[in-house]
Parts: sequence; C-alpha cells; structure tokens
Amino acid sequence: MQFHLDGFRPGDPAVAEPAAGAPPREMPAEVPAEVDVLVVGCGPAGLVLAAQLAAFAGIRTAIIDEKPGPLRVGQADGIACRTVEMFNAFGFAERVLRESYWVNETSFWKPDDADRARISRSGRIQDTEDGLSEFPHVILNQARVHDFLLERMRDAPTRLAPHYARRLDGLDVAGAGQGASHPVTATLRRLDPGHEGEVETVRARFAVGCDGARSGVRRALGLALRGDSANQAWGVMDVLAVTDFPDIRLKATVHSAREGSVLVIPREGGYLVRLYIELDKLGENERVAGRNIGVEQLIAAARRILHPYALEVREVAWWSVYEIGQRLSDRFDDLAGDEGDDGVDARVPRVFIAGDACHTHSPKAGQGMNVSMQDSFNLGWKLASVLLGRARPALLRSYSAERRAVARELIEFDRAFARMFSARPRDPDDPDDAGVDPAGFQDYFVRQGRFTAGTATRYQPSLVTGADTHQQLAHGFPVGMRFHSAPVIRLADARPMQLGHVVLADGRWRLFAFAAAGDDAFAGVRGLCDALFAGPDAPLRRHARPGEDADALIDLRAVLQRPHRAVSLSDAPAALLPRKGRLGLIDYEKLFCADPRDDLFDARGIDRARGCMVLVRPDQYVAHVLPLDAVEALSAFLGGVLLPAD
Amino acid sequence: MQFHLDGFRPGDPAVAEPAAGAPPREMPAEVPAEVDVLVVGCGPAGLVLAAQLAAFAGIRTAIIDEKPGPLRVGQADGIACRTVEMFNAFGFAERVLRESYWVNETSFWKPDDADRARISRSGRIQDTEDGLSEFPHVILNQARVHDFLLERMRDAPTRLAPHYARRLDGLDVAGAGQGASHPVTATLRRLDPGHEGEVETVRARFAVGCDGARSGVRRALGLALRGDSANQAWGVMDVLAVTDFPDIRLKATVHSAREGSVLVIPREGGYLVRLYIELDKLGENERVAGRNIGVEQLIAAARRILHPYALEVREVAWWSVYEIGQRLSDRFDDLAGDEGDDGVDARVPRVFIAGDACHTHSPKAGQGMNVSMQDSFNLGWKLASVLLGRARPALLRSYSAERRAVARELIEFDRAFARMFSARPRDPDDPDDAGVDPAGFQDYFVRQGRFTAGTATRYQPSLVTGADTHQQLAHGFPVGMRFHSAPVIRLADARPMQLGHVVLADGRWRLFAFAAAGDDAFAGVRGLCDALFAGPDAPLRRHARPGEDADALIDLRAVLQRPHRAVSLSDAPAALLPRKGRLGLIDYEKLFCADPRDDLFDARGIDRARGCMVLVRPDQYVAHVLPLDAVEALSAFLGGVLLPAD
Repeated sequence: MQFHLDGFRPGDPAVAEPAAGAPPREMPAEVPAEVDVLVVGCGPAGLVLAAQLAAFAGIRTAIIDEKPGPLRVGQADGIACRTVEMFNAFGFAERVLRESYWVNETSFWKPDDADRARISRSGRIQDTEDGLSEFPHVILNQARVHDFLLERMRDAPTRLAPHYARRLDGLDVAGAGQGASHPVTATLRRLDPGHEGEVETVRARFAVGCDGARSGVRRALGLALRGDSANQAWGVMDVLAVTDFPDIRLKATVHSAREGSVLVIPREGGYLVRLYIELDKLGENERVAGRNIGVEQLIAAARRILHPYALEVREVAWWSVYEIGQRLSDRFDDLAGDEGDDGVDARVPRVFIAGDACHTHSPKAGQGMNVSMQDSFNLGWKLASVLLGRARPALLRSYSAERRAVARELIEFDRAFARMFSARPRDPDDPDDAGVDPAGFQDYFVRQGRFTAGTATRYQPSLVTGADTHQQLAHGFPVGMRFHSAPVIRLADARPMQLGHVVLADGRWRLFAFAAAGDDAFAGVRGLCDALFAGPDAPLRRHARPGEDADALIDLRAVLQRPHRAVSLSDAPAALLPRKGRLGLIDYEKLFCADPRDDLFDARGIDRARGCMVLVRPDQYVAHVLPLDAVEALSAFLGGVLLPAD
Repeated sequence: MQFHLDGFRPGDPAVAEPAAGAPPREMPAEVPAEVDVLVVGCGPAGLVLAAQLAAFAGIRTAIIDEKPGPLRVGQADGIACRTVEMFNAFGFAERVLRESYWVNETSFWKPDDADRARISRSGRIQDTEDGLSEFPHVILNQARVHDFLLERMRDAPTRLAPHYARRLDGLDVAGAGQGASHPVTATLRRLDPGHEGEVETVRARFAVGCDGARSGVRRALGLALRGDSANQAWGVMDVLAVTDFPDIRLKATVHSAREGSVLVIPREGGYLVRLYIELDKLGENERVAGRNIGVEQLIAAARRILHPYALEVREVAWWSVYEIGQRLSDRFDDLAGDEGDDGVDARVPRVFIAGDACHTHSPKAGQGMNVSMQDSFNLGWKLASVLLGRARPALLRSYSAERRAVARELIEFDRAFARMFSARPRDPDDPDDAGVDPAGFQDYFVRQGRFTAGTATRYQPSLVTGADTHQQLAHGFPVGMRFHSAPVIRLADARPMQLGHVVLADGRWRLFAFAAAGDDAFAGVRGLCDALFAGPDAPLRRHARPGEDADALIDLRAVLQRPHRAVSLSDAPAALLPRKGRLGLIDYEKLFCADPRDDLFDARGIDRARGCMVLVRPDQYVAHVLPLDAVEALSAFLGGVLLPAD
C-alpha cells in the first residue's frame, strides 16, 4: 500500500480524500439528472463496475436498484481464485480470505459397490492445482461480497452510494448527432415509501444493464437471451444441520443410485452448509413454479440421497428452486448487427449489458457471480479510459467481443457439467448401463479445474490484446490471459511479495521489464528506460499529460534476475525511481528481484538471455509480450488504444 | 472464523450481537456511576485492556482519557512479531499487515575505513530469524493501532467506546470491608466544551491506570518510577524527504565518526520515514526542555550524520525531542509491601497500573508500545475471569509479579542497547580507542532479536504457570513462554492453517492434545477425552456451568500425527466433535493433523511415542506441558486457578 505521497495525512489510508464535488457520506435522495455512467442493478456485476468507476475523481456515476436496500442474504457463494485476484486489486482480498470457507479438497461419493442403496466415497482430490493462483478458491455469501464492494465505493474519492428503490421504466439512446454528449436517457420510477411512483429522468453518456436475467436494459436494446430452456429442476438450501456424513465440511459431489445427486458446499463460519439437490426430471412444458416444491421436499430428497447418513436440518437460512437453462445474448452492447472488433465500424456503443443480463447458466459450477464480475471488471476500465479522454472510443467495442466469447465457453462448459452431474451413475455390474462412470466424472472435474478457477480465460488478439509473436520470451505469461502472479523481493525494502499485487484496480496499465542476463543487473532494462522516455513520441511521454506523475497512465516496473542483496539501488535508472506528487518524492516500489527460493524467471519461463517486456491491461490481462528493445512495436500497440496527451 | 452457531445471521460477522443493556453505537455522554472496571487512559495499554474486556457481555467497563478524541498522529510505531500474534487473537492482524511497513532487513552503517568523515554500509542482516513467528515485524503509526482496537471495542457485544475529555482528579480505594462490591472511587473532571469543570464520580470493582509516565493512578497509589534520570537527548521526526541514501527504505543504524548516530525506520505507505537522531551529551542537570531544540536542528544533525548522502526534508509530519531514562515502579498494583505470588497473602489487588505508568525506557528498541500492550493483555483475561466468577481472585496477584519481571528485563536490555547505540564507533586505526566495535554492535543486535521480537518473555512458575517437569514431551512449547504456532491441516475441511490461530482473545483456555504413536490415529487422545469428562470432578466437567458449551471455558483441541487423508472423522471421540449452541450443532474445528510439508511434531519437538497435553492460557502463554494420562495433575493445576462451577 502506498500513501502519504502528497504529504502526511492521518487516518485510514483505505479512505480516499473526497474529490471536489463528491457527495457527503450520505447520498442525496435524488438521482442526479446528468451522469457519465448510469449503472442499472446492484448485483455483483453492477457493484464491481461502480466500485471501479468510483475510483476516478473525474467520473460521475449513478447506480440504481429496484430493491429497497443492500442484499442481506445471498444467492451465489462461490468465489473462484481469479475473482480473489480481482478482489485483491480492489483491496479487500484479505477480508474475504479471513471470513470465507476455503475449498481445499473435493470429495466424490457414488453408490457403494457392495450395496448400491448406500453411498460410499470414491475419491478425494485437491480442489485447485498447485500454483494455479496465489489465492484459494473460497465460498462466501454474495451479500458480504456486496458489502465489501459498497465499502470500496463509499471510501473512494467520489463517495459513491447506490440509489435504491428505483425501477428502470425506459431507456432511450439518441441517434447519431442527437444529444451528443449524453445520448442515453433513462426514466426511473421511485418505489420508496413517500415517493412511490415519482419519476426521475437521468441523462448519461453511457448506461450499463447489470439488472439480471430479466434485464430491462436488455429488453430496451431489443436483445434476447437465446438457448436451452431448462428441463431439469434443482433445489438449493443453506441450512444449519446435524449429520454424520463425514464430508459435510468438504465440497462433495454425491451421486446416489436412484435418488439423484447432491452437491455439498460448506459455507463460511464453520456451521452453515449449502446443498444443491437434484429434483426429478421435468417434462418439456413442466415448470418448477407449477410444481409447488417446498423446502421440506428438498430436505427429504437430500436425506434419501445421503443414505445411510442422517441429516437433521435445524434451521433453513435460505432456499430456492430453479431450473437449469443455458442462455446467451447475441451482443453485450447496443451495436446491433456487428460482432467484430476490427475498428472498421466507427460507431461507439452507448449501452452495455453484463452478468446475468447477457448469460445465464446453472449455479453448480460456481461460475455465475464470478463471470459476471469479470464482465464488468473488463468494462469498467475501458469506460473510465474513454471518459477521461485517455483511450480511443473504439476500445469500448472490445467489451462485447471479449466477454461474449467467455460467456459462450462458460455455457458450453456448464451444459456438459450439468449433464454430467445430473446423469445417473453407471452400475458396474451392468456393462450395458448408459450412466456416467464415476471415475470419468472425477476426471472431468479435475480437467476443468482451471476453467472453474476462472484462470482459463484467453482474450483473442484485438485492439487491446497483441499477437503472441514473442510468446517464447515468457511462456508463463500467455498473451490474452490474466497476468499470473509470482513471488519477488522488492529491492528497496527487501520485502517478499507477489509481483501481481502491484496491479491494482486503478485504471492504469503496467509495463513489466524483465532484465536480460549481463554484467549489468539492469541489462536491457537501462536501454528500455531511456527509449521509453526519449523524445515527445516515446511511448511513455506521448500519452503523459503535463504535470501528472510519470506512472499515472502506464506504470513501469522492472524485475531483475540477481538476488536483491547483489543489486545496488544507486545503480538504478532514474525512470525506476521516479519523483512524484506535490512534493517530488521518490517512489521506491518500482524495482523487484527474483526470489531465489522460487525464481519467477524459471516459474514463468522468461528468457534469461534476452529478458522481455510484459504489458498488462488495467484488468490484469496480459496485453503483449515483447523483446526489451521493441519500443517501436510497443509504441504502435499503445497508440492503437491510447490517445496522445493533448 | 466461526459464526452462525445459534442460527444464521446476515451481516458482518466481525460485529457481535449487542449484549442486553449494551449502549447504542454512540456512547451516552455521561460516564456510568458504577462499573466493573475503570480504565484510565486511551493509549495502547488502555485500549488493549478495553478491547479485551469489551468481549464479555457480563462486564461493564468504562475507559476515559484527558484528550478530546482519538489519537490522530502517532508516537510509537514499532510492532513486534509477538504483538502481531496478539493482534491476530483480536482479529485484525491482516489489516495491520496490509497497511504497515514490513521490517525485513536491518542494515548497519559506520564510518568508512578509508575516509571516516563519510559513512559506508558495514553489514546487512535479516531482521527476524526464520521461524521465530509466523508474522513479520512491522511498523505502523500508533494512531492506526488505536483505530483497530477502537473498532474491536465498538463491534464487541458491549459496544464499548471511550469517554474522552475526562481528567482523573482523585482515586480512592476503600479499606477491607468497606464498599465491598465497588471499593474503588474515582473522581473525574470533564474538560469538554460546555461541560468544563463538571465532576463525575465513578465507583468500580477495579481500576487500571494506563495513563502514561505521569500516571495519576500511580500517584494515587503512592508509587513512584525509580531509576536513571536521562543524560542523553534524542530527537525523533517523521518526515517526507528526498535522499540518495540507498537504505532509506530499510531499517538502518547509522553511526558516524563524530556527528552521532541516526536510526532510520521506514514507515508505512512507501514515502514516510522516521529518523531517531542522537543529539549531543547532556550535562547532569541540563534538560531537553531548557535547550530549545527545534526540528531544524534535528534535520541539520541528520544531514551531518548521513554525509555524504543528501537529505532534503519536504514535510515534517511529527517530531519530538526527549531524554532517555529507564525507570520502573516497585509494584504494578496496590498491594504495597509484597512482591510474592505465593497465595499466602489473601488480599486482592483493586488497582493496577500498566504500560508507561509503570515502566519507561527509550523508544529505539521499539519496545514501549509492545510491552505496554502485553501488560494489559496479561491483565485483561485475569480481570475478566475473576469478574465472571470463573477464577480465584488470587489470580490477580500474578499480574504485578509477571509483568514487573518483564519490565525489569526490558529496562536492562534498553539500558545496554541505548548505551551501545549512543557510543562512538571505534576507530580501527587506534587500538586504544574505547569506542564500540561496529561488528560487536551488529552481533549484539542479532543476539537480541528474540527479545525485541517480544517472543523471549518467560513467566516463572506460579498459580498460572506450571513447572517444566514434563518439558521434554514438547521442547518447542516451553512452559511460561508464548505458544509458538506451527502449521497444521484441519481435519474436517483439509484446510492448511496455523494451530496458534485458534487461540483468540476470548478469555478461554486451550488444551491441545497431541496424539501418541499407535494403531489408533487418536492414540492417547481417546483415553484423555474420556478422562477429561468422566464424572463431576473431571477437570472439564468441574469448571463447566450447566447449559454452557463444553468449550466455553476450556477449549479442547487435538492434533494427530497422521496425514489428514489417513484419518476418518467418523472415528473421532465425541468430545472432539462437540455439540454446541442453541441448535446443538457440531463444531468441526477441534481436530487437526500434522502438515507433512512442515510436521509440527518435529518442529516443536513433541515426543512422538508418548504425545502430550499442552495447556495454553487465554493470553497465549503455555501454562503447562503434561503427559496425556496426567489428568489428575491437570485437574490439580486448573483447580488452583479456576473455581468449580456453582
């Protein structure tokens, strides 16, 4: 954490100085008439977007929700490793790790070979493969995730708070040339006591629908979710129960011979557990709502499936019954009729949808909340960059392209996983049985581990993702995938830390220079530092505004091969000890050395002879891998996304 | 973290349900007329005590301070490993680690051999030896430590908040037989605008003076600080500066040849640094106050000492000048004329002093705040146990005995360290030079590392600390020293964690049973579980009140030698899967297995053949090490401290 740059300030460093014009801690009752971004919906996608936008003093955001106040009990609860990485960028990963259940292992239960009316454990695996992420896979009530994001918004310079009890009644986007600066007009209806029915009109530069599967924003864009309707019913319940099932505190998949399946997800706090229970097959036109399933039926089904173990439910904290359906929207923005990101179409999207508004799937793979938050994390920095005049508006076209591809993969995965999960286990004594082989299910589960951890996402080459021409310089930082953190030692204070943890959700790009071998500890890096700043067209000068810190938009860091005690800070290029802020203080946190106990040059396959540059997007994805001397290529790439400073 | 035991409750689990009669979030303006404990002083000692007492719904505490509100800029800033362990017991270690500077290495600078007018680096060492604690040594503004403790108080069931702007005007303890229930009477004078001069009278069962070196409570007890007056002046300043001194982000001791010494302590946030600067020798009757030293002189001295490096101070956040003096009070309570803890004297102390009120020393070893907080951590659970009727009142006599011995050690250490630090470095070209050998200083520093980390404290045998008769069963858990955490795997959920982190600041004792070798994974533990609960006089029955959870006062945990996948939860003795709370839920967090990657049976020298019991006090100190079958000895020991349940 860095603070005190512009002078010592007492108090909690997590609470930013309020921006000029920021509202006081209590939001005024009325939604502002004009904003930069209107976010519709206070779910995970909406709150991640709002938390990201709130960090920028120059951006006015409003976020609304139909509900009267913050969520108190959750729906989703799975938090993938990749999501914890993102939470770390927002500054609250520690709190999530402290409070959550950690998914360390998964166990598999199937009909016992000797007595198929009983279940027995068939396997037990580590949940997340070693080294996949520096963070574990955890489980935490969605409501608490909301709390942390709301806290980030509240402590941000803009002191952003939601306007609850607002229903979106209409959304209109002006045609080209009309209402140029704020082309989106939203009509909101107040639902709060004393104001019921009052109408507010908000004009916005951009609007984002994070308003769930029945999204009003999506409807206003004329888009529909397409895909399977569901034909299987599942129940879910969060319970406090007493049981002799020995894996009640492990994530466990339980396939009974004839009674269906249960997925056991232990919850935070040591006592609560979530059970996903397969109900029986639904007919084509038979819907859950028509079947009057109650929690008693869920409990009874769970007890039959877990036989011979007892399950005594003492309290039900929350429950629901739902149908599985995998559905996807054609586009995630308002640029109808075009899927490309080729820059040929000069139109700029003005309205976006994210999360359940554009893709729905079953909850059992624990992906919904995670993918939704990654949607808006992808969008947030792009909107901010364009609004702040730092990036070309065409950047906004990459959101739909990038995230729709992820959602499509998710839906394919979910379809296969749900089918696998719902299938009857094969009877080993019946060679003709068409059921699923339990060992096969476990294998599938292991293979898909990276996908469910959220670390498999790979964005295709585009305006914001380079080609992998130089991938061999750093195998472990695949272009288009999230920057995979690794341990380093910070040079100035000898602190062991994670390199990836310098990538904060602050809208900045990071340029990591990995030193080449040579007599000079800074081999390759020294020349790069010069070239990056040499002349007005050098990439780190061209995009820098007068008076701002050298790292305000692109944050240069270097990682050296030598052990930290073998490097002298006095030898460092000035660009790596930049002077910043009102007082011209030196920032000592740009220089790192490999940690000899776990050398990241080895761990990430970095070419020791040549070194390399790795450019990382504000959402933590690798934008480019380049040779240390490829400043022109870097310049060309950055020039394609970013605007020169005016 | 455990929660939801008595039913699901939404919201932040760190905020306890308010106790009946707990004040609302804003404390009423008046100090209550009658309390169980009156804490005088909102420094680190007072706040740790208040945070500890606030955790008990049945205890009424008031804490007052002369200042008009919370501290905003700090004085102390060093946080020893042992203190972070204590913070972890209070639940905010993560937040301290996130925000603080980590002291990873210390560097040593001395006059350059070639040119003694310049300084050069003579050595560089790891600050804390490997394995000393699972936590690092960190630096953080005292004001932030206060903030975290105030937050713990506010979120506790009793919703405790300080009453600021109160000066202690008088303190009186009634003689034996008089005012029996609340023998302490304190007279407070309000200093807050609109109430200046108003007098409040508070009657208390106990009062604790955490009111600093000029303690009014100490004065009321007729005790004095005895010891050296100071004859050396030091200056301290927190500055934002620009320098080319390469170790400005390392803890560094700098001894110049003729200009004195500087201690460099980098501070949190990446930019701030604290410099302790030796001023020149004072004459016997010459005092700092009489010398008109200003911050400009401190800066000038630092510049001379750091030559040839430049130091440009851009902002001074805080500064002070002080004299070194090591002084100690004869007793830390009101039982004049008796140092013993032998139980012969049946009197119960009613007034205590803690922190600077009973010991003062120089700040450079970074011990003041740490030792003060450990004082009141030692006292807090004892007061709570006696007030709640769980422990014999004689327990309170151990506070002065235990903590005065620690303070005496600290003062001896500080005297030697300060002398060493202030001495002129020896000139290698002058064999008769009486100065200090720089290598000797560095050696001394290394040897004292455990002391400064706060992990060297060892309480002598007493009512609450057993004899080390069976120490050979667990060499690494020395009786009387803090329970040294080690990694384990929690059986029920396969979670890798630190065993010591189950010892929370909740006033409970922990009994760890380390399994013996044998065919049964629970060898030795199974028999112990039976014996601990067998019959009304068995130790875990005798002290248990009807209706309370089995672990309410003594929390039994077991650690097995086998890897966790080789142990079945179904084989566990019922005492290790206790049913708790309103709903009779099973607590799954009592059972651990050695982590094969770092086996604690090896790391802590536990006798694998015999296993052992380790009893840990509520303040994390090892009270006893006993064979697994020594239930009678355990019973006798516990019976000496705890009262049978009535």
